[in-house]
Amino acid sequence: MTSTKHTYSLKALAEHTGATVVGDEHYQISGLSTLQKATSEELSFLANKLYQKDLTITAAGCVILHPNEGSSYHGNKLVTEDPYYTFALLTQLFVEGNNGNDGVHPTAVLGKNTTVADDVSIAPNVVIGNSVSVASGVSIGAGCYIGDHCHIAKGTVIHPNVSIYNRVNIGSCCIIHSGAVIGSDGFGFALRKSDQNNSEGLEKTKKTTWQKVYQLGGVDIGDNVEIGAGTTIDRGALENTVIAQGVKLDNQIQIAHNVVIGENTAIAGATAIAGSTVIGQRCTIAGAVGIIGHLTIVDDVHITAMTLVTKSIDNPGSYSSGTPLNRTSVWRRNAARFNHLDDSLKRLLAKK
Amino acid sequence: MTSTKHTYSLKALAEHTGATVVGDEHYQISGLSTLQKATSEELSFLANKLYQKDLTITAAGCVILHPNEGSSYHGNKLVTEDPYYTFALLTQLFVEGNNGNDGVHPTAVLGKNTTVADDVSIAPNVVIGNSVSVASGVSIGAGCYIGDHCHIAKGTVIHPNVSIYNRVNIGSCCIIHSGAVIGSDGFGFALRKSDQNNSEGLEKTKKTTWQKVYQLGGVDIGDNVEIGAGTTIDRGALENTVIAQGVKLDNQIQIAHNVVIGENTAIAGATAIAGSTVIGQRCTIAGAVGIIGHLTIVDDVHITAMTLVTKSIDNPGSYSSGTPLNRTSVWRRNAARFNHLDDSLKRLLAKK
Amino acid sequence: MTSTKHTYSLKALAEHTGATVVGDEHYQISGLSTLQKATSEELSFLANKLYQKDLTITAAGCVILHPNEGSSYHGNKLVTEDPYYTFALLTQLFVEGNNGNDGVHPTAVLGKNTTVADDVSIAPNVVIGNSVSVASGVSIGAGCYIGDHCHIAKGTVIHPNVSIYNRVNIGSCCIIHSGAVIGSDGFGFALRKSDQNNSEGLEKTKKTTWQKVYQLGGVDIGDNVEIGAGTTIDRGALENTVIAQGVKLDNQIQIAHNVVIGENTAIAGATAIAGSTVIGQRCTIAGAVGIIGHLTIVDDVHITAMTLVTKSIDNPGSYSSGTPLNRTSVWRRNAARFNHLDDSLKRLLAKK
Repeated sequence: MTSTKHTYSLKALAEHTGATVVGDEHYQISGLSTLQKATSEELSFLANKLYQKDLTITAAGCVILHPNEGSSYHGNKLVTEDPYYTFALLTQLFVEGNNGNDGVHPTAVLGKNTTVADDVSIAPNVVIGNSVSVASGVSIGAGCYIGDHCHIAKGTVIHPNVSIYNRVNIGSCCIIHSGAVIGSDGFGFALRKSDQNNSEGLEKTKKTTWQKVYQLGGVDIGDNVEIGAGTTIDRGALENTVIAQGVKLDNQIQIAHNVVIGENTAIAGATAIAGSTVIGQRCTIAGAVGIIGHLTIVDDVHITAMTLVTKSIDNPGSYSSGTPLNRTSVWRRNAARFNHLDDSLKRLLAKK
Repeated sequence: MTSTKHTYSLKALAEHTGATVVGDEHYQISGLSTLQKATSEELSFLANKLYQKDLTITAAGCVILHPNEGSSYHGNKLVTEDPYYTFALLTQLFVEGNNGNDGVHPTAVLGKNTTVADDVSIAPNVVIGNSVSVASGVSIGAGCYIGDHCHIAKGTVIHPNVSIYNRVNIGSCCIIHSGAVIGSDGFGFALRKSDQNNSEGLEKTKKTTWQKVYQLGGVDIGDNVEIGAGTTIDRGALENTVIAQGVKLDNQIQIAHNVVIGENTAIAGATAIAGSTVIGQRCTIAGAVGIIGHLTIVDDVHITAMTLVTKSIDNPGSYSSGTPLNRTSVWRRNAARFNHLDDSLKRLLAKK
Repeated sequence: MTSTKHTYSLKALAEHTGATVVGDEHYQISGLSTLQKATSEELSFLANKLYQKDLTITAAGCVILHPNEGSSYHGNKLVTEDPYYTFALLTQLFVEGNNGNDGVHPTAVLGKNTTVADDVSIAPNVVIGNSVSVASGVSIGAGCYIGDHCHIAKGTVIHPNVSIYNRVNIGSCCIIHSGAVIGSDGFGFALRKSDQNNSEGLEKTKKTTWQKVYQLGGVDIGDNVEIGAGTTIDRGALENTVIAQGVKLDNQIQIAHNVVIGENTAIAGATAIAGSTVIGQRCTIAGAVGIIGHLTIVDDVHITAMTLVTKSIDNPGSYSSGTPLNRTSVWRRNAARFNHLDDSLKRLLAKK
């Protein structure tokens, strides 16, 4: 538990979250922990019935509980309809603040016509291009690069070593984790196949080369977006790549050019989305999913881990692909059958 | 549309691309856009029949068309056999230039015996090791690290926060995007299994440890290679990892030690290639593909998205693995059957 | 071959590794290479019978051989029970040293109460927070960021442009490659579904938003851990994410919050592990594997490439999922059958 030593009364925590105190409202809490590990100075929560047995042994100074749960628990309680949501609200009180050097560190390099609000934190070795605006309350970590004509709205936190190319707009209260890259070139090439004489002029050789399509669009990121460590978001080819407000992106996600992700969609780590695909609102996409390009996925779609999406999804619901885990020895026999599945079934179905 | 306000006559654009103007060759174009969004100052293109309906409503000042297309379109045309290729050539005219501080920024740190051409752009906080050569026209973005004994040939652009270890050779006119890492150690370990006495000396415990194989090779990257954001290319164990000229690598690709990728092969994002695999020329590998180690893949192979390649490919053509997308509820039933496929088919095929 | 020109006698190499010299123990070796490419100044090894033919043509000055191999080879030998392990030990003698500026570079920025041993190498533009300890022999590459309250034990090497958030403990003799991120926020959000009046107050609209669960845990990394380029390891939600001693992580691996990885487990590139999963000791997990959250995997499990692990693994052994590589045309027919597998088999099995 790495919280700083802020201390709050249960009354204060209840006021912050809208929960109700049952017990001693003057009791002081200095941190959060699991039911198993919490000390008497710490608060815990029960959000999953699997952990109900831990309630009987917890040493926590207070537990967040649903009104229907924990009747046998006689310690202090914060009672609320949604214990996990209440816990989430409390985490913000106990997290450590930014490690920024307040203000603009003298080693930071700022371009021409760049405006920076008074109450920002720009860490050592940050490099910001020309005609950038950095709004109030923004924190930019060490070693970040921000290209020309970017706009970063109020309260956004950019962790160290993030790279943002030119013409990227970032909304307010976003969090961008280290190693993220925003606005890199989309993967756009025109194929040129040509017959060429070789140097002796005697034979024709086939020659395929790729002509780069320079990427003229930018990236628009809405308010309250979180972008994970190492995630990459390419700029658009002509129009902008769009990440709407409230979107949550985990680590090492790849978002190709001109993708549009709808409001409050959440995507887990290592998922890759190819160019020009449009994803709706409130989708939940698990980890290591692949989504090919030029598709449309409607609102409220769930996609399970490591699924490959090869066609547009027109109806809400849950979608999957792949095969189940098995012993390699068993899997190998089944997989070999898969390779002849059409022939086998054709034969079997033709049998009288 | 983020182009700077360069303006070109249709005549100039035709000369740049080899296309033919039909219409007013003095007409001025200041940007590129889609048929739907183009203004009368912008040029657009029709490369895909899907967008043919947009031709009837476009406000574009000129459209790039194939001679057989768009006979009903009466605006200005650039006529060419390959509209998308012509469009690609034009994108370079409208892209914004580098944001570099011209010359070597005073905060850059250069090692001993390192030579830098006069007309380079080395941004703030770049660190370059000893015995490096940086050729004419090279641009190195903020916060990049270049290790000892690297050579960077003419006109190559390295975006901010790229890390290049020692003994990496990079050809001319390459583009390397932010967060890329080139020359990191290959994943090489020798397994040591040993029986050891535990501290009481009474029992034997199995102990597996890994002895690092220090990676003594380097990386060779040819001319005109593009390397995407967050892509990692490991150095060789003894010989070099090789990325041949004209190769295009998208974002977050992992290239293990001693991989060889042939000329003009293009690989989409999030693909991973294990050690010592050799890939031919002009291959097109889609996103999120996995290729295991020590394989050989011939020229002109296409691999579809999220395929796992577990054996060498000796013939050109297209290859795949995986199962199709389905509703999770339906998928689950089919997947359960897969787990018993061999048994089921054995039984069925044995039936009279 | 990029080794520096250290030169060692066979006697010295035998003493370093415990192998036995057969031949001229004063023979001088200045590098390592493959059997095919080695010169008379270089040493090579035979660890795989596939390369036995190369033994007849090698020009190597010495070859590492198992006592039962290479009886027909009459050059100098280093004889050992485990040639590859012996080779691995020798690679350390021939690798180039760190390119660090010894000591603390004047451009490095160190926070308050941060202690740095005398014999460290802290490169240009490193930024270190408050209350950090950096032990003897540590090397931190250019542009790295180390947050508050981190501890870095003896002899650990951190390559350029690594980002380490606050409250991360790193053991001794670790190697962390460029672009790695350690201690970024876990992907934790509490879902809030609420009915809200829209701005006109006339209709109810469904609104899903995500409340961030601030991540209060840290990361503990044991001794002798290697972390690949671009790999990301999230901090814990309440308790710490744990990477035990001897673990080897390849490039672009994603480790979510509260994952625990047991001693000496090795994981290949592009694998993603979701939150709270516990992995045992001595596991070997191939590349591009996905492991969902809240699972337990016992010791000595092997998982093949691109497998999705969706349930806990209670027994050692090898596990797989997926389908085999095939021509796309053939694969497509089989895949179409998969989509109706349950129906087809149900029908067939019901037949008399």
